[in-house]
Amino acid sequence: MKNQRKCIGLAGFGVVGRHVYEQLTTVHRKQFYVKAVAIKHPDRHPETDIPFTTSLDSLIWDSEIEVIVEVIGGIQPAYDFIRQALLHKKSVVTANKYLIAYHGNELRKLAAEQGVQLLYEASVGGSIPILSALNCSLRHHQIRSVTGILNGSTNFILTALSSQPNRSVDDILQEARDKGFLEADPSFDLKGWDIQQKLTIIAWHAFGCRLVPGEIPVLSLMGFSDPDRFLTRYGRIKYLATICREGDTLSSLVIPTLIEDTHPFIRVQDEFNAILVDTEYSGGQLLVGKGAGGHPTACSVLADLIAIDHRLPDVDESVDWTIRHAQPLGQVYLRVASGKEKQVISRLKKEQVVFRPIGNDQYVVRSISLSVLMSLQTDLALAVKLPSQLFIESHLTQRLALAV
Amino acid sequence: MKNQRKCIGLAGFGVVGRHVYEQLTTVHRKQFYVKAVAIKHPDRHPETDIPFTTSLDSLIWDSEIEVIVEVIGGIQPAYDFIRQALLHKKSVVTANKYLIAYHGNELRKLAAEQGVQLLYEASVGGSIPILSALNCSLRHHQIRSVTGILNGSTNFILTALSSQPNRSVDDILQEARDKGFLEADPSFDLKGWDIQQKLTIIAWHAFGCRLVPGEIPVLSLMGFSDPDRFLTRYGRIKYLATICREGDTLSSLVIPTLIEDTHPFIRVQDEFNAILVDTEYSGGQLLVGKGAGGHPTACSVLADLIAIDHRLPDVDESVDWTIRHAQPLGQVYLRVASGKEKQVISRLKKEQVVFRPIGNDQYVVRSISLSVLMSLQTDLALAVKLPSQLFIESHLTQRLALAV
Repeated sequence: MKNQRKCIGLAGFGVVGRHVYEQLTTVHRKQFYVKAVAIKHPDRHPETDIPFTTSLDSLIWDSEIEVIVEVIGGIQPAYDFIRQALLHKKSVVTANKYLIAYHGNELRKLAAEQGVQLLYEASVGGSIPILSALNCSLRHHQIRSVTGILNGSTNFILTALSSQPNRSVDDILQEARDKGFLEADPSFDLKGWDIQQKLTIIAWHAFGCRLVPGEIPVLSLMGFSDPDRFLTRYGRIKYLATICREGDTLSSLVIPTLIEDTHPFIRVQDEFNAILVDTEYSGGQLLVGKGAGGHPTACSVLADLIAIDHRLPDVDESVDWTIRHAQPLGQVYLRVASGKEKQVISRLKKEQVVFRPIGNDQYVVRSISLSVLMSLQTDLALAVKLPSQLFIESHLTQRLALAV
Repeated sequence: MKNQRKCIGLAGFGVVGRHVYEQLTTVHRKQFYVKAVAIKHPDRHPETDIPFTTSLDSLIWDSEIEVIVEVIGGIQPAYDFIRQALLHKKSVVTANKYLIAYHGNELRKLAAEQGVQLLYEASVGGSIPILSALNCSLRHHQIRSVTGILNGSTNFILTALSSQPNRSVDDILQEARDKGFLEADPSFDLKGWDIQQKLTIIAWHAFGCRLVPGEIPVLSLMGFSDPDRFLTRYGRIKYLATICREGDTLSSLVIPTLIEDTHPFIRVQDEFNAILVDTEYSGGQLLVGKGAGGHPTACSVLADLIAIDHRLPDVDESVDWTIRHAQPLGQVYLRVASGKEKQVISRLKKEQVVFRPIGNDQYVVRSISLSVLMSLQTDLALAVKLPSQLFIESHLTQRLALAV
């Protein structure tokens, strides 16, 4: 029996690792056999029935182990470990978005050279099988754009801001920290870096385009505070990532966005993720599922473990993409950090941007290019693209009418 | 070049067939080569550059053809044709839900014996890659239930009823007929038979359970008419199919349903389909996409054509399911066909069903078993399950208050 099962080495035993182990040894025990689990701190793991080891190398040198699951996270030691595993002709399943976003191309190439697989469904969209869909089912639909809510933590925060109007922004951020959704330094989520990395991976699978995460324009959610709170009414602010094709040109963007009440993401709340793939041949394809958590992420790891036996079609790299980032954004809401009003207004005037003040230091800008907006970003507390006339009708018209 | 391409025989050149041909010969021409297209009526196809044949057999006997795409529809001649193709060791891709729902098990077995593939993603959910997701990505999530809007025609009609309140039901049905969404005899869609067939296919892929379409309980949308029109306000009536697991018991049902305003299907309009897979490990997974049309269906055929080289994991048939159909339904709205009032009321009383009249011959029943409801069905114009308290608040409470 044992020999028929695929032999797995698991590196990492945090929230995701524990759930992967649990699923492999219960519902999937007929298919898989976990020979070793590499951990860093054995004193934190009192379980005696789990085959722990503190040596990552032992997983690589064990000839019985066919597939390695990496759920350590971060660049090192994960990078060296995965490289060595591939060089030893072991297939690798990883949930490491950071590593794949920055080193995916190199590691994919190495895996192909070695005739093994490198799969990372769990790195994007939590439980949503987006990479599998982009690789297989959706590639024939001629993809025009992919837009997503890709960060569960910020969606959880935006949902709380909207559903608990009496709590302050700081209070909700503190709850997110207490629940482990945000690090002590929340930059990775709130500044959109996590989303940049995921969008890089999506860009590869949707378009065969190699982006560098740091080059994707991103507008931060970091400065969002109580004066902006009115924007969260009706739960219509979403932190969106988008990559869009026009001919051979691709543009990508991460930006807090006010969506219309009829938008398919309107009910996507809490830690859920959503991905809308707009296609030439079949219109919008929507996928929604839990974006975070041990079990949902473990499910994506499991899906990869099964997929390893079924070599998937290669990504189409035939298009030589032009990357463009300076598109105009349409209506944008800005709040200017205190003391910076003059500076920002003079800059807006200089760029001939039409704006209407809607409060002491809040502005609705009629149309602004992304490059101007990003150059202003350090002086702005928040910029939200306002594509929705509905919102203007329901809330802003009165204030606009006063201001105009 | 030609020899590197997969050689395809296409059977059928209707709406779907044309779009499959178009996609194969344009964006996918590097991968595929359509050697022959079998049609019934050559006089209806004036195109001279398409390799037409009137002989289905010629596709089977052509040794160069590796894969046959069947988009004829119906049981015969499709059944004999696909059987022969499989016996001649050709893989088959089909969009034929009717055939797969009734003969899928036999044909799947034959394909496995012959070492070829039988794929039919296009038979369910239009452009939504639901079978691929159930086979691969979602099977590790431990599926609890699958609920869907699986019929684009009836969803189009329900959307029109809701969005065009001044038009009569008959008028909207006529428009659906004129647009080709409904046959002259609309039973197949309105009585839920189309949905029964699709649900049978989903039951197989989600649970490895072999259902017979005709045995799935179905409540018809056929008798829906102007007195029921108030139910369509806010677009909250959806014609739902559901299959649900409790331990080793499965229950399935096709029923017009009033969904809550927060339900993920609330924005699924026109001919769109939606499928919600509820899972043990990752909660709800939602997929939404176009449910009908030439291009969307052709995309699913194309996805199968690519997947043919990547043998998918087998469906898990290990559970010996008990099928249960007589669950209680909770709150149900009934309208009784004129002249049948006494008969229905006496039957409800005999079954000790508690009900409240809300009009001359309309009732809200507090709880009723499915078997009683189905036995009454011929005497009822419509039965809609009302799971939503919201609706009661917004509309029915006033009428109920008058009636109680």
